[in-house]
Amino acid sequence: MLGQIVINNWNYKPLRRYAAAIEIMSEKRTEISDLGEFGLIDHLNEKVIIKNSSTLKGIGDDAAVIEAGDMVKVVTTDLLVEGVHFDLSYAPLPHLGFKAVAVNVSDVAAMNAVPKQITVSIALSNRFSVEAIDALYEGIHAACEHYGVDLIGGDTTASRSGLVISVTAIGEAKPEQISYRSGAKENDILCVTGDLGGALVGLQILEREKEVFLANPDMKPDLGKYTLVTARQLKPDARVDIIHELREMEVVPTSMMDISDGLASEIFHICKASGVGAIIYEDKLPIDKQTFDTAVELNLDPITCVMNGGEDYELLFTIDQKDFAKLEKHPDIHFVGHITKAEEGKFLVTKSGTAVQIKAQGWKHF
Amino acid sequence: MLGQIVINNWNYKPLRRYAAAIEIMSEKRTEISDLGEFGLIDHLNEKVIIKNSSTLKGIGDDAAVIEAGDMVKVVTTDLLVEGVHFDLSYAPLPHLGFKAVAVNVSDVAAMNAVPKQITVSIALSNRFSVEAIDALYEGIHAACEHYGVDLIGGDTTASRSGLVISVTAIGEAKPEQISYRSGAKENDILCVTGDLGGALVGLQILEREKEVFLANPDMKPDLGKYTLVTARQLKPDARVDIIHELREMEVVPTSMMDISDGLASEIFHICKASGVGAIIYEDKLPIDKQTFDTAVELNLDPITCVMNGGEDYELLFTIDQKDFAKLEKHPDIHFVGHITKAEEGKFLVTKSGTAVQIKAQGWKHF
Repeated sequence: MLGQIVINNWNYKPLRRYAAAIEIMSEKRTEISDLGEFGLIDHLNEKVIIKNSSTLKGIGDDAAVIEAGDMVKVVTTDLLVEGVHFDLSYAPLPHLGFKAVAVNVSDVAAMNAVPKQITVSIALSNRFSVEAIDALYEGIHAACEHYGVDLIGGDTTASRSGLVISVTAIGEAKPEQISYRSGAKENDILCVTGDLGGALVGLQILEREKEVFLANPDMKPDLGKYTLVTARQLKPDARVDIIHELREMEVVPTSMMDISDGLASEIFHICKASGVGAIIYEDKLPIDKQTFDTAVELNLDPITCVMNGGEDYELLFTIDQKDFAKLEKHPDIHFVGHITKAEEGKFLVTKSGTAVQIKAQGWKHF
Repeated sequence: MLGQIVINNWNYKPLRRYAAAIEIMSEKRTEISDLGEFGLIDHLNEKVIIKNSSTLKGIGDDAAVIEAGDMVKVVTTDLLVEGVHFDLSYAPLPHLGFKAVAVNVSDVAAMNAVPKQITVSIALSNRFSVEAIDALYEGIHAACEHYGVDLIGGDTTASRSGLVISVTAIGEAKPEQISYRSGAKENDILCVTGDLGGALVGLQILEREKEVFLANPDMKPDLGKYTLVTARQLKPDARVDIIHELREMEVVPTSMMDISDGLASEIFHICKASGVGAIIYEDKLPIDKQTFDTAVELNLDPITCVMNGGEDYELLFTIDQKDFAKLEKHPDIHFVGHITKAEEGKFLVTKSGTAVQIKAQGWKHF
């Protein structure tokens, strides 16, 4: 019986059968889908205890914050899995490499910190040639160049099946520059950079054209009309530019996060962490014309795309009203609403003046 | 044609067919196996350029080193893939969780730094229950407790197939305490902690018993005789204790790395990075009695297990001769040889007095 091995005085539940260890870890079996992705993350985070004084912020924001002399470092990590986060039948490898870096850099920016270093680990099978790996790294290096970050480490290993990319990004800020999700207060102005919904619409187009192609391989998908939305999906850009501009204008957002799961979901996170409510206005929501037109073509409601479309990697942040004048003229920052008391809830005011309760809608991978 | 999309002025090679993008990234196809694991890593590292002054050391050691006020942070990351790095038919999930942390902490220790924070990302399928994930995290938390590190972040996501664990560890040291691979100099003494070869022998036993079980599921594997070697494989311990002791004794190794691929391979790394040669003595090599006896039982040469067995996670380091007296009486540090001129090569002197050239033998995963 492979059980009862006491290792360094640390016992474990005996394995009653040699094989299939994971099936018999427990008498009880709770499915991950019973908890959901956020439920699972909450469940796992409950047991975390922070002991080191150098850990200023652990789990629960876009990035962790650790002490580093007069400065702080922020640390974030993301795992991208083939078949879950990307589809190599239409995601070109250079774009994928760029995106893997960008989504992590976006989390650093979301703390109002400047990205400095990344590590990149990849697991892949012999289905990939050296040329394919080079194409992936072409995108990784392009992103390093674009964001001014150094590739300082990683791991390269075999995989039994698909490609897995794990990136960790490290950034830097003065302690007083860090914007947590928890700092929003009543009457702060809600700001959004860029435009929203494009990445989701782009994904729908790529999926639609893939189906067309699979049905008839002689059909050449024509994506010329959809350049912007497919680019939003295949190669998003983290808004590090905004972080630098905020510093120049001497504005520190009272709270901030990046928009990776959709505006509605992120508003929920900010409101929960800050203990506040929010009201936003449909006519203030930034949506690009190609995104709008393509959504309509796909029979999607453009506002739903803006509210629940993920992967835009724009920034959502709140500012004190006194800072409004400094940002008022910025061409790429949109003032979409303001923070209210928690008991006032979270509402979207439509163009017709109706207040609709905002519902968060995350992604279900399991 | 899904090609010719110019994204942010960054063009990519057009995809001529919609699907199977990775197959047609290039006319030429070089297999990963043509380069080998180390060859691939060298190939990828060639193109890395460091631009930030805060990056003190990038790729090429056990961990990267970045500036952090008066201190430095070291950063390392490892990816563990089911079916490549572990086999869940005999690796209990708590042990696996512990090991995933330990192997990263070991890389921090190998820089002579003290581990402080980790991030842990996992990708897994619905084959795993919440109880199984809890069992994995039981080991992760036990390792955090054991090494005094905080779990500060991570990512939890779905996987199409096996379990993938990505850990990043961050440690701290004064700049002058960091030990690189490159600092060994002629006449320095080569030191090894603990004993070697156990993890490889343990793996052979676990694999053997798995075969027995698969042939006849009624057979209960009896691993009682092999507690130490199976523990070395299933739950290795990083030598953070040695780092603290070296500080107390005021010894900074002139070079250091951890023994993850086998002593022979690590001696090659130190010699290459430092531009030196080395001579070691068979009768000085530390091997535990159970490891020796089990190797003999398995018809393995015990010295080959010591030289080429991976995953022991002991430390290999060099010290200046002036520091020898401080370490001489340490019960768990073994003085296995010394550093020579590069042109003198790398040799093992056997018990019979013959000098045998050391051959590095890495692991082939592809």
